[in-house]
Amino acid sequence: MSGSATPAYRAFGPETLPYGVFSLPDSEPRIGVRLYDDVLDLCSAARRLGHPDAHVFAQPSLNALMDQGPTGWRETRAWVRSLVADDSGVVDMAQHCVPLDGVTLHLPFAVADYVDFYASESHASNVGMIFRPDSPALPRSWKHLPIGYHGRAGTVVVSGTEIVRPSGQRHPGDDDRPLFGPSTKLDIECEVGFVVGRGSDLGSKVGVADARRHLFGVVLLNDWSARDIQAWEYVPLGPFLGKSFATSISAWVVPFEALSGAELPLPRQDPAVLPYLDGNDHDLFGLDLHLSIIVNGHEISHPEFRDMYWSPSQLLAHLTVNGASLRVGDLFASGTVSGAEPGTFGSLLELSWNGTRPISLDGGTELGFLADGDVVTLTGWAQAPDGRGRITLGDVTGRVVTRPSAT
Amino acid sequence: MSGSATPAYRAFGPETLPYGVFSLPDSEPRIGVRLYDDVLDLCSAARRLGHPDAHVFAQPSLNALMDQGPTGWRETRAWVRSLVADDSGVVDMAQHCVPLDGVTLHLPFAVADYVDFYASESHASNVGMIFRPDSPALPRSWKHLPIGYHGRAGTVVVSGTEIVRPSGQRHPGDDDRPLFGPSTKLDIECEVGFVVGRGSDLGSKVGVADARRHLFGVVLLNDWSARDIQAWEYVPLGPFLGKSFATSISAWVVPFEALSGAELPLPRQDPAVLPYLDGNDHDLFGLDLHLSIIVNGHEISHPEFRDMYWSPSQLLAHLTVNGASLRVGDLFASGTVSGAEPGTFGSLLELSWNGTRPISLDGGTELGFLADGDVVTLTGWAQAPDGRGRITLGDVTGRVVTRPSAT
Repeated sequence: MSGSATPAYRAFGPETLPYGVFSLPDSEPRIGVRLYDDVLDLCSAARRLGHPDAHVFAQPSLNALMDQGPTGWRETRAWVRSLVADDSGVVDMAQHCVPLDGVTLHLPFAVADYVDFYASESHASNVGMIFRPDSPALPRSWKHLPIGYHGRAGTVVVSGTEIVRPSGQRHPGDDDRPLFGPSTKLDIECEVGFVVGRGSDLGSKVGVADARRHLFGVVLLNDWSARDIQAWEYVPLGPFLGKSFATSISAWVVPFEALSGAELPLPRQDPAVLPYLDGNDHDLFGLDLHLSIIVNGHEISHPEFRDMYWSPSQLLAHLTVNGASLRVGDLFASGTVSGAEPGTFGSLLELSWNGTRPISLDGGTELGFLADGDVVTLTGWAQAPDGRGRITLGDVTGRVVTRPSAT
Repeated sequence: MSGSATPAYRAFGPETLPYGVFSLPDSEPRIGVRLYDDVLDLCSAARRLGHPDAHVFAQPSLNALMDQGPTGWRETRAWVRSLVADDSGVVDMAQHCVPLDGVTLHLPFAVADYVDFYASESHASNVGMIFRPDSPALPRSWKHLPIGYHGRAGTVVVSGTEIVRPSGQRHPGDDDRPLFGPSTKLDIECEVGFVVGRGSDLGSKVGVADARRHLFGVVLLNDWSARDIQAWEYVPLGPFLGKSFATSISAWVVPFEALSGAELPLPRQDPAVLPYLDGNDHDLFGLDLHLSIIVNGHEISHPEFRDMYWSPSQLLAHLTVNGASLRVGDLFASGTVSGAEPGTFGSLLELSWNGTRPISLDGGTELGFLADGDVVTLTGWAQAPDGRGRITLGDVTGRVVTRPSAT
């Protein structure tokens, strides 16, 4: 992607400026902004410059910053941009920047509720064909509403956290009795997560036109999945232990504001949606995010988020149409991002067709589901708002282990 | 229940002593204990008596108290019992008690993750017969694992909160297109909720023999359900908006320790369960809780918790067997408590057989699903540990409205 025709971009340049929570060996976790391979210590800069939000930046999560609402989000980002752009010498950036490799990154926000959707038509069709070969590939409600469910907020972990292979029940054959043991079909799901920065009242709803006022930012998200556990347990109440052992998110939250240059119209929705899910092109936006799945250093797929059927604004409108309230720190994810072509599928379930067609990594290794020691990384980028430069999404990585490493 | 053969018990006597969070018009929320129709202000008593945990009792939730772990739970309960039993005049109880009708009760703890199980065989069979008449009544995994799913923690509300009838999609006929509007099949589910007071590490599991060390207390729980929304949305990822609009819990958390006299053996489990769900009679306990569902003042059902197939310890062991961590404030519910007889069913779906056989309230009113203005209350009790006296479970009540009352 750095051929002669394309300018080489350094990741996490001044167009992106994502927020995260970091600590140094001798300090408490606090809020920073990533710039190239450094972390700008917002708390230290704010104190030095007398910025009134220094106490907010001293928090060990983004929740207080998010709680300031959209006006606060814009003001903080404008201030950070001014710091980064300043060449007057008034701000000694070197004094407030620390190298990324010397810090510990933490879960960037306290997750309130975590909801996972199922918004890719290709993914839903593929899963239907694999898990329910005797039924229509898409559930009959699929094009009328964005199907979703609640996941476990307490097991959302930050990128870099080791993923312990889950044990559970599976039922691979026709025997009466299930087996028990470590999952033999450990999978990934390449997703985009949306971070809610503004709550809403119980009994009210957030319409598609209001969704942007609640969307603070975006993370990449790996919804680790044990397909054998999931297949046995999910009827009739949905996935549970097949998903709840871990969900990884990037350490960096890219402000939604940074993605304005990536907005594009949704694919056509047919049949027409109900009025509460309908809106103009501004309200029903897609996002042109270019994703990549890398296993043990090899890119195995490059999903395109523009292929998603449902808009993030429709996901949020649906989530609240029954009067469910939002809280600061709610996280809702897109569901697996899969395009129509195999090279754009977002899970090993699809890429290996439930293990029946292992994919070849460079060097000849075959990959079906994940083996212990495998390292999975999701990355992504989008065009910057001015069309020059790139927004880098925070990457999310995890290594599969059988039991936690001694610490 | 107060006939001549049965001594009349006053509810919430000194056997129960449940914890809650209350406020007076001029004060911040803090922790109290219910005694008859009073609230004992633990914070005020602790300050007066120099108890070292006064700052814990000053919190607006039980989470810090729960975080002290089982030894702390026992010590606090013993101290409260000594206060209540004291007749030396050293403790002026009147000074620290306020009448219940003068206080506001709050959600007693910050809910971390909320999981709902499906542990009644009668309920699961009834729902299967109603929703999936062409399939076996019980899902094939039902007797091998306690089926469960995650609900929305942010919409768990305290008893007394009005329940706004949810709107959503439903698909009552054979048309291609769903309808949209307020739910026409608003239901209740009479459940028991278990409050986790001690966390666990990601990647570890809590076995059935360790479950008690994590169980702080018990609430009654009404898992309000919009059956029409649920029926249309739940394939394949489970219930979502049909449940997420509100879940009510009692304001009072009864310490698990208070229920030792209610423990009894489980009904026989056949087929035998896998080893991680197996244990001796002490580990696989049932609970002899007598529940009641009251609609507009009429008792319509009296579910018996002793009929539940799975033990609370098995629910917790299953929830964590994949390595999912627990947090202080996690809430897991039993699922609807239904016995084999219609008079013991725990939902209107079952009691009215999906609205086809409305039940008669005293006075001749017919009840299928809930109408606006209907008030539903769940109550419960158990024998006290010494066999004399009763443990009163906190009741949970809610009134159905079309939109929130002006406040």
